[in-house]
Amino acid sequence: MKLGDLGEFSFLRRLRARVPVDRGVVLGLGDDCAVVSPLGLTLLTTDVLIEGVHFRREWTTFALLGEKAFAVNASDIAAMGGEPTFALLSLAIPRTCEVEELEAFFDGFLRAAAPAGTALVGGNLSAAPCVIISVTLLGRAPYGTITRAGARVGDDLYVTGTIGDAALGLRLLQEGREEPLAQQSKARFLCPAARLMLGQEIAARRLATAMIDISDGLLQDLEHLCEESQVGAIIEAAALPLSPAYRTLVGEQDWSIALTGGEDYELLFTAPPEQRAKIQTLAYEADCPITRIGGIVPQAEQIKVCGPDGTVSAPRHWGYDHFR
Amino acid sequence: MKLGDLGEFSFLRRLRARVPVDRGVVLGLGDDCAVVSPLGLTLLTTDVLIEGVHFRREWTTFALLGEKAFAVNASDIAAMGGEPTFALLSLAIPRTCEVEELEAFFDGFLRAAAPAGTALVGGNLSAAPCVIISVTLLGRAPYGTITRAGARVGDDLYVTGTIGDAALGLRLLQEGREEPLAQQSKARFLCPAARLMLGQEIAARRLATAMIDISDGLLQDLEHLCEESQVGAIIEAAALPLSPAYRTLVGEQDWSIALTGGEDYELLFTAPPEQRAKIQTLAYEADCPITRIGGIVPQAEQIKVCGPDGTVSAPRHWGYDHFR
Repeated sequence: MKLGDLGEFSFLRRLRARVPVDRGVVLGLGDDCAVVSPLGLTLLTTDVLIEGVHFRREWTTFALLGEKAFAVNASDIAAMGGEPTFALLSLAIPRTCEVEELEAFFDGFLRAAAPAGTALVGGNLSAAPCVIISVTLLGRAPYGTITRAGARVGDDLYVTGTIGDAALGLRLLQEGREEPLAQQSKARFLCPAARLMLGQEIAARRLATAMIDISDGLLQDLEHLCEESQVGAIIEAAALPLSPAYRTLVGEQDWSIALTGGEDYELLFTAPPEQRAKIQTLAYEADCPITRIGGIVPQAEQIKVCGPDGTVSAPRHWGYDHFR
Repeated sequence: MKLGDLGEFSFLRRLRARVPVDRGVVLGLGDDCAVVSPLGLTLLTTDVLIEGVHFRREWTTFALLGEKAFAVNASDIAAMGGEPTFALLSLAIPRTCEVEELEAFFDGFLRAAAPAGTALVGGNLSAAPCVIISVTLLGRAPYGTITRAGARVGDDLYVTGTIGDAALGLRLLQEGREEPLAQQSKARFLCPAARLMLGQEIAARRLATAMIDISDGLLQDLEHLCEESQVGAIIEAAALPLSPAYRTLVGEQDWSIALTGGEDYELLFTAPPEQRAKIQTLAYEADCPITRIGGIVPQAEQIKVCGPDGTVSAPRHWGYDHFR
């Protein structure tokens, strides 16, 4: 059935029946506002996915889009060391879409939100020539928040997981590459996961002095962290954690995509050297690599990349800037 | 200067310098999340304005768009009887826009938010082929919340201000009408104001049993209220408050636009008859008409419109449905 046959309000009635009722929600979907009862400090973040800018419909499914819309926002909560609690979801979609596609989108969103303990409490639906998704998440920070501003000279610099995979995946999608090795990278772009558990453990164990998630690219996001902390940084290129797919398809010695590719949604954080053992314990317990990729230096030294031969250079390209 | 010359992050640095720092904001713009400290029950609402769907750029200015983006969200807070406290603002905009246009947009938003006591604490900026604005507001409800669900048979039905003006204004914009009388209606569409003070007073004085704002059209929004309250309603057409511009340009006896036109952002509420005197006192004090336009009847009687000759009819057209 087309959305144009069902109508906006009939769809919303159907949707309400699909959304579970959660604790802490005083009033959920269906009124002018949602009413919730947050406890203590509240994290707030919002992000938008626009067809033709952030994704193409022919590359993905509505279910994956729903999952990604949750993940890219949850990643901001993870980067503060928090837990997402309540979600608002605005969706604009062409009238020609099928009701089943819209339901798949909401199911994907709810499938990602439920294990994170996040309740969908509000939003709105409108018609548009292309798909536009806007999500706002509230979160709580039971262990306090980790900002971008706490890095100190002498801190180590860490990244979770592997990097460059999402940008590689995007390139493989653009090139129409179908080989088995390409699937993993494409999935990193199409269906990223937020590092919620790691972020919360890093906060609970008080391991990090500053943290950010990698959405614009490693160098770009490191620059944000360094600017807020008023420090510089040096990255050891040979230490960057690259996936087997990246090593094969891009090359072991080509760090360009890993340094500048966005949308990995890994965590980049700084910690004093005395935390090294505890950080490796966390990596072991979480079954996720946490790799030391460099260190924090005085602000005057800016951000530099050290090659495997010891040569140090300033980056020429930083990452994604929407207006450049 | 074009946005493409300045870049995303340079613009965001300039923006941070323009945004005042407010109380209750632990961490404002510039990190992965904002951190706020809400007190008690928290209202949440979100809404999107999309170029070509909700507005055309040639009709308006970026400053007016900023004001409207705040107002349409604040109206949902007003309809619960609350006060908006914190705002998140996502903006997608073509690279070819001028930096000054973007600054005018933010100034318009802040100009509307400041007198309402609302702090802009987060958001994001991206490039897109058209202008897309997504706002999320948090609010507090010091007098409790007024939902759509409390209307009772025998209640009176009230509306604030005059209705139909925004839809008339949209029609006049579409027709390119320029006469002086058209200006006021066009302004109602281009730069609506949320009834924040009235909404809060209605809550503080415990006047209403149910309330909603008129965004989709009087009949459509009345239908939402009746559905949630499980009641019906009868509207006295001759009682509908019409502006002088409406009476002249549409006609005193033509209620079609007043009944179905959206985007007035007036408040529609129900109250028991014993509140009549107190409601007129509020209207006098607030210097804003609050008009009794009908009453609540049992659900089986559905929603009907009573004409000036006493004939009662069921509406054939309800208002705006995005997918119809």
